[in-house]
Amino acid sequence: MPDNVAELAEHALIERIHRRVAAASSSVVVGIGDDAAVVEPERGSLTVMTTDAMVETVHFDRRYCPLDTVGHKVLAVNLSDLAAMGATPQQALVSLALPSTLPLSELDAFLDGLVGVATEHRITIVGGNITKSGGPLFVDVTAVGSVRRRRVLRRNAVRAGDDLYLSGEVGGAAAGLASLQASPDAATGSELCRRRYLQPDPRVKLGTQLGKNKAARACIDLSDGLADGIRQLAAASHVGFVINSDDIPVAPEARRWFEATGVDPVTAALIGGEDYELLFSAPTSRRRSIAAIGRLSDGIPLTRIGRATKDLACLLVRNGQEESLPKGYEHFFASAQDARS
Amino acid sequence: MPDNVAELAEHALIERIHRRVAAASSSVVVGIGDDAAVVEPERGSLTVMTTDAMVETVHFDRRYCPLDTVGHKVLAVNLSDLAAMGATPQQALVSLALPSTLPLSELDAFLDGLVGVATEHRITIVGGNITKSGGPLFVDVTAVGSVRRRRVLRRNAVRAGDDLYLSGEVGGAAAGLASLQASPDAATGSELCRRRYLQPDPRVKLGTQLGKNKAARACIDLSDGLADGIRQLAAASHVGFVINSDDIPVAPEARRWFEATGVDPVTAALIGGEDYELLFSAPTSRRRSIAAIGRLSDGIPLTRIGRATKDLACLLVRNGQEESLPKGYEHFFASAQDARS
Repeated sequence: MPDNVAELAEHALIERIHRRVAAASSSVVVGIGDDAAVVEPERGSLTVMTTDAMVETVHFDRRYCPLDTVGHKVLAVNLSDLAAMGATPQQALVSLALPSTLPLSELDAFLDGLVGVATEHRITIVGGNITKSGGPLFVDVTAVGSVRRRRVLRRNAVRAGDDLYLSGEVGGAAAGLASLQASPDAATGSELCRRRYLQPDPRVKLGTQLGKNKAARACIDLSDGLADGIRQLAAASHVGFVINSDDIPVAPEARRWFEATGVDPVTAALIGGEDYELLFSAPTSRRRSIAAIGRLSDGIPLTRIGRATKDLACLLVRNGQEESLPKGYEHFFASAQDARS
Repeated sequence: MPDNVAELAEHALIERIHRRVAAASSSVVVGIGDDAAVVEPERGSLTVMTTDAMVETVHFDRRYCPLDTVGHKVLAVNLSDLAAMGATPQQALVSLALPSTLPLSELDAFLDGLVGVATEHRITIVGGNITKSGGPLFVDVTAVGSVRRRRVLRRNAVRAGDDLYLSGEVGGAAAGLASLQASPDAATGSELCRRRYLQPDPRVKLGTQLGKNKAARACIDLSDGLADGIRQLAAASHVGFVINSDDIPVAPEARRWFEATGVDPVTAALIGGEDYELLFSAPTSRRRSIAAIGRLSDGIPLTRIGRATKDLACLLVRNGQEESLPKGYEHFFASAQDARS
């Protein structure tokens, strides 16, 4: 039996919490375990809620993460969760625990980053909480959005035979973090990768478009890596996947960084977290709709990287050989970045 | 010009944030600055949202705050904010940052405390976030409720001439904290006061009853002390108050504790925080309704402690003499407990 929280994987911790909290009431459409929760306060009107925190030294290092990027990112990752549910974001609450030594200029920078994302996505910061920390800087955002009942994108709706799609490119954030850690000050590495790590773009428009007309069947956002996202979709939907290694859209700048540092780019892109792209399944009959949605969503590329199978295994086809998909972040406290919902 | 956050009072920090975040959109009924935010996702259906955090060493000391009481309290203080808006609580999200050394039994205790309050008030924990901390244990809860538009209880609606009411008794939590700090282990001091500090009862039923038929005009919950609550109502409503010292319902156990330690009980009750009682105003024509509501709300005493005035001063009448009301927690980082919304 494990004794303390460090000995449990993050999914085991969430499962433990899930077991202990009360049974869902009838107004809860989606409870614990998806990208966000969905409730129905009034019949037909669904509210989507999610919360995500960033802790200094765990999620950001102030030596290379200016606080405007922390403000940007903590709201962006919440909007990414809403996007993965097909929801339109509307409001956010911000909870801050501040070290007493934090310069006011840094607080202002944080707020500027937060407000930048809020303004871009037409969200109102309606309130929050402020306290002192005694330890590291801690920021927690709760975002609320809306979605119609038939447009909710869950994790558990993949069917065997579905195409599996990925938005944008992956590996950029992991390369950006690696380059920042290697040389926090100098502008080595790719500026684009650093920006992907520091200031991810949540795929808000794409998420709502995918929910419309149920173009996508299931969806998740990539916080803990592509391999983890694939495994989560598989586990929730009771399917497996066969992924084609050559089809994984690794960002060219990330590919160059990983190759220069002697790391296999595809493996790095599969394991590396924080790309905040959307991973979704759709029936093969929807290929034209999906292509159209890509064009409507600021032209973001949507790449078919594999398909869902009845067999529960998650496989990667590389050079014609099937291998098991890497596991990604497995152990809660062993990982450099912890898992996110 | 202040340089870092420690030099600004908490209200000044909130004002600074308020100025920087974007203007409220049309769907926001109540934004930053009240007990909770109110939005209208669909016409006529109002959602109320609040968030409140507790940080180890700042809000609780694990030497005398078992984690089940922390789980209880962090949800209770959020429900208190909803009650102060007249809202019925419905769901909560829980965000945790855990030190890696936290025993699993402690996490379980925390969850038990949380679930106890959730069950009592029929709230569903619909999701959350979990991360490691690197520093102290940090728990943040966001609670969501609903209210009809005509039943929203704001802070800014007191009118000169209104009666000012207080639910229950005050001073208990401050006496409980003082007794725990004086002897964390021994059972000295009042068990009732300790419980008031560790496991406050949010006045959920009372808040919704006060919102019905607009029996109360304005309301706030007492997180940072009675004096602070009175001053916040006064500032938001542009009125003053005259409070009768003899009418302040100081808990008898708290009175004994303060007298035994040489502290004036009324002053201690005015300044001491965390009672989580409701402070509300009502027109004098509503005295019979208010009495009836007290009986409907589990018989909780509702005491008339003063009245609102056109003059903006907040005065305390003690032994026939008017004096200025104490200020309460003034400085964000100077206080033992920080201010809460």
